[in-house]
Amino acid sequence: MQSGKVRIALALKGIDYETVPINLIKDGGQQFSKEFQTLNPMKQVPALRIDGLIIGQSLAIIDYLEETRPTPRLLPQDPKKRASVREISNLIASSIQPLENLSVLKQVGKENQLTWAQKVIASGFTALEQILQKTAGKYCVGDEVSMAYLCLVPQVANAERFKVDLTPYPTISHINKTLLTLEAFQVSHPCRQPS
Amino acid sequence: MQSGKVRIALALKGIDYETVPINLIKDGGQQFSKEFQTLNPMKQVPALRIDGLIIGQSLAIIDYLEETRPTPRLLPQDPKKRASVREISNLIASSIQPLENLSVLKQVGKENQLTWAQKVIASGFTALEQILQKTAGKYCVGDEVSMAYLCLVPQVANAERFKVDLTPYPTISHINKTLLTLEAFQVSHPCRQPS
Repeated sequence: MQSGKVRIALALKGIDYETVPINLIKDGGQQFSKEFQTLNPMKQVPALRIDGLIIGQSLAIIDYLEETRPTPRLLPQDPKKRASVREISNLIASSIQPLENLSVLKQVGKENQLTWAQKVIASGFTALEQILQKTAGKYCVGDEVSMAYLCLVPQVANAERFKVDLTPYPTISHINKTLLTLEAFQVSHPCRQPS
Repeated sequence: MQSGKVRIALALKGIDYETVPINLIKDGGQQFSKEFQTLNPMKQVPALRIDGLIIGQSLAIIDYLEETRPTPRLLPQDPKKRASVREISNLIASSIQPLENLSVLKQVGKENQLTWAQKVIASGFTALEQILQKTAGKYCVGDEVSMAYLCLVPQVANAERFKVDLTPYPTISHINKTLLTLEAFQVSHPCRQPS
C-alpha cells in the first residue's frame, strides 16, 4: 500500500517498470532482508531503481519522475497551486501515513492498533477536509490531476481498511470516487498487485 | 523545533519575517486555538503566511520559497542530486520526525516516551548514515548547501534532546558540526527563539 503513490505516478506517466514484490509480513518482513536493505536502508517500501539511481521515499521518487519525465504533469504550473498540492501531499505523507505504518502499529500493540490508526487518520482527515474545501475543483487542487491525488487515493483505501467512518469528510470521499474512475488508478489499485 | 527547517530556509534566503510564537505546551497547546487552526487545520507548526497564501508543512513551504525566491538555491541543479536531497529530506520529515512529535509522545505515555523516541531516531539515523556515506561531500549531498541540511540540523538537535548516542553515526555528526558553523544555522537555532 505504501508503494501506491509511486505505482500511480508510473502509470499516469506511462513508464514501464518491473515490480519486485516485497511482502511486509512474510518471512518476518522481506523489507528487512540484506538484499532489500542495500536498495533502501530505511527498510521501507518503495524504492525505485531508475537511470542508474536508487531512490527511496515516495515523494522524492515522484519529484524525480516529474523533473525528468514532465508529461503529463503532476504539479501545476502556478507556484501557489503547486504549494497547495505539496501541502496536501506532505500532510498525507508526513502527518498521517507514517503514524499508521506497520512498524508503528507493532509498537502500539495488537489490542490498540485499530483505535490508534483510526485516531491518526481522523485527525489528519479533519485537517485535510478543511483544506480541500478551499482548494478543490474536480480534484484536490482545481481541476488538474496532480501529486496530491496520488497521495489521497491510497490513504482513503487505508482509512477503509481501518474502518474509519468517512461521513464527516464529504470532500475527501467525493474526490476519491472521481479519481478512482481514472485508468491509472485502476491499474495500480492494491487488489491488482502481486502479493 | 518543528519550525526549525523553515526558519533556516528563511535565514539562508535572507527573507525577513515576523514570528508568532506558538507554545506547544502552554494553555494546553496554543496550536489547538481556533485562531491557529484557521492558519493550519493540522494544528501543527509551522505555518507561513506569504504572498497572500497560508502554507502548512515544512517541506511544502521550503519548496514554495525555492520556486519563488530561487537565490541562494536549496536544491542542486542536477536532477539526480536533487533526488538525493529530497530522499534525505523526506526520510527525516516523514520517517523520523512525525514519530517523535509531541502528539505521538503523548499517546505513547510518559514512561515510554524516551525509549520510543530513541528507537525511532536510531532506526532513522542508521539508514541516514548509510545514505550519507554515499552522497556526502562537505555537506549532505556533495559540497552544496541544500534543503537536506535544513532537515538534518533540527533532527540532530532533537536526537541530543532525547539523549541518543551519536557515536554510531559519524557522518551525520560530522556534517552537523560543519553546518552549525554557518550563520543561517546560528540565527535560527532553537535557543535563540522566543518561547
